[in-house]
Amino acid sequence: MKWYTEEWSKECKFSIAYDEHLHSEKSDFQQIDFYKGEEFGTFFTLDGLMMVNEKDEFIYHDMIVHPAMATNPAIKNVLIIGGGDGGTAREVLRYGHVENVVMAEIDERVFRLSQEYLPITALGVEEDPRMTLHFEDGLAYVKNAPDHSFDLILVDSTDPISVGEGLFTTAFYQECFRVLNDKGILINQHESPYFAEYAENMKKAHQKIKDIFPITHVYQYHMPTYPSGHWLFGFASKSLDPLQDADLAQWERYGLKTKYYNVDLHKGSFALSSYVKEQLTHE
Amino acid sequence: MKWYTEEWSKECKFSIAYDEHLHSEKSDFQQIDFYKGEEFGTFFTLDGLMMVNEKDEFIYHDMIVHPAMATNPAIKNVLIIGGGDGGTAREVLRYGHVENVVMAEIDERVFRLSQEYLPITALGVEEDPRMTLHFEDGLAYVKNAPDHSFDLILVDSTDPISVGEGLFTTAFYQECFRVLNDKGILINQHESPYFAEYAENMKKAHQKIKDIFPITHVYQYHMPTYPSGHWLFGFASKSLDPLQDADLAQWERYGLKTKYYNVDLHKGSFALSSYVKEQLTHE
Repeated sequence: MKWYTEEWSKECKFSIAYDEHLHSEKSDFQQIDFYKGEEFGTFFTLDGLMMVNEKDEFIYHDMIVHPAMATNPAIKNVLIIGGGDGGTAREVLRYGHVENVVMAEIDERVFRLSQEYLPITALGVEEDPRMTLHFEDGLAYVKNAPDHSFDLILVDSTDPISVGEGLFTTAFYQECFRVLNDKGILINQHESPYFAEYAENMKKAHQKIKDIFPITHVYQYHMPTYPSGHWLFGFASKSLDPLQDADLAQWERYGLKTKYYNVDLHKGSFALSSYVKEQLTHE
Repeated sequence: MKWYTEEWSKECKFSIAYDEHLHSEKSDFQQIDFYKGEEFGTFFTLDGLMMVNEKDEFIYHDMIVHPAMATNPAIKNVLIIGGGDGGTAREVLRYGHVENVVMAEIDERVFRLSQEYLPITALGVEEDPRMTLHFEDGLAYVKNAPDHSFDLILVDSTDPISVGEGLFTTAFYQECFRVLNDKGILINQHESPYFAEYAENMKKAHQKIKDIFPITHVYQYHMPTYPSGHWLFGFASKSLDPLQDADLAQWERYGLKTKYYNVDLHKGSFALSSYVKEQLTHE
């Protein structure tokens, strides 16, 4: 048994056992490693940071997709930025009323390797006729997209270091605002409040988004394999409020079976602890 | 820099750095170790498992105490089972209307060492005139307590192995039911849904409590230094419901400053994810 170890902070480490190091390569953008163990199944890391594993990917992918889909049942055009493992697309494509899903993933190798090693997230995504794949930088993609062309943008990115950095900038959020229509929603990977370095990124991202979108919330979920297990998404929108406007009864009528998300949790996940709220309001 | 490492499962480890191993002893009941590091401050372990650290003890202690106190503003007599570090008593004693707090902690050494090394949780607890300390087994204590003698029982225990085992038994929960008055509430350390071994204990505890108490809920919180960071308390009561009966406006009037708990989170914390709900309903 070998161990993959991630530094959650200078004084905190998290380790997962694996039997096989399935693949390792340096792509044009980052170091990619796929591993396979018993408990966590197949998992991969980018630049040494845990991205997706078979044990708890359902948590992240439920939470990045369903709260927005429940808030606006009329979502038809969805843009995914990043999300190369395919899990976010997989969840979006479960909605029969979704017509077009564009995925702008900078690193095609992440997607191809996920197709090979992680069918749980990638299987069937490319084959869905509603899907368009662009292997290019997400920031470049939104810059070139027309005004008001999407109902929903899901930013499924790495942390704001190296390849993911541009997806945590004011310029990027402004372009997202522009390409969203009047009921548009932006969901973004929003880091974590517990370890100082992540909390800094969380605060910065929130402040930038608040300066651009009229409605901004942050919601939380339990993601045990991400640093501290306390992870956040940002919910920013032009007009819809995820608590007041969500059509939860409609969401239940879809009859989607979800392992993490449910309509009570929808409301509950926006209730943040005091120290998190304080970090988000002080700037 | 040395590392304290805890096995969260056979294939998952969590490590915290420390500079000093402040104290190590085998008491009559368990192995006790106090450490001191930069980020997590002073922390201690029992039989090698993380109990309390200065960085996030506020989360656990907020969540074991405040939801019950908000549900019934008339709580005057409180029994704490375990809780040797003093943090649970500290939070209970912040309520001016609480008249008596009994703490039944089996291992006096945990309390004495916390007084020495962890003033953040233990300072002032013994000196409070409303406080009575019994260094004896919690199960024995409740067996000898009169009927209807407490408004609230807080079970601040270790996992159901070794010394904490008796506090996860039907016999214990039955005695708790008996000594609680008609509006009585039982809060118990309820383990975690993510790793199989902890999930087993969570399910068993919940089933036992459901068989005894008419009202039972489970609520969750983000506790990064406990296995998976996804931790639960059980809320069992004879008549009060933590969602329908909580007097949250009254709780806000107390003006208590809390770093984790707040009235929105009170409601939100009872919204469990689907896989947790499923584990709790299937037996």
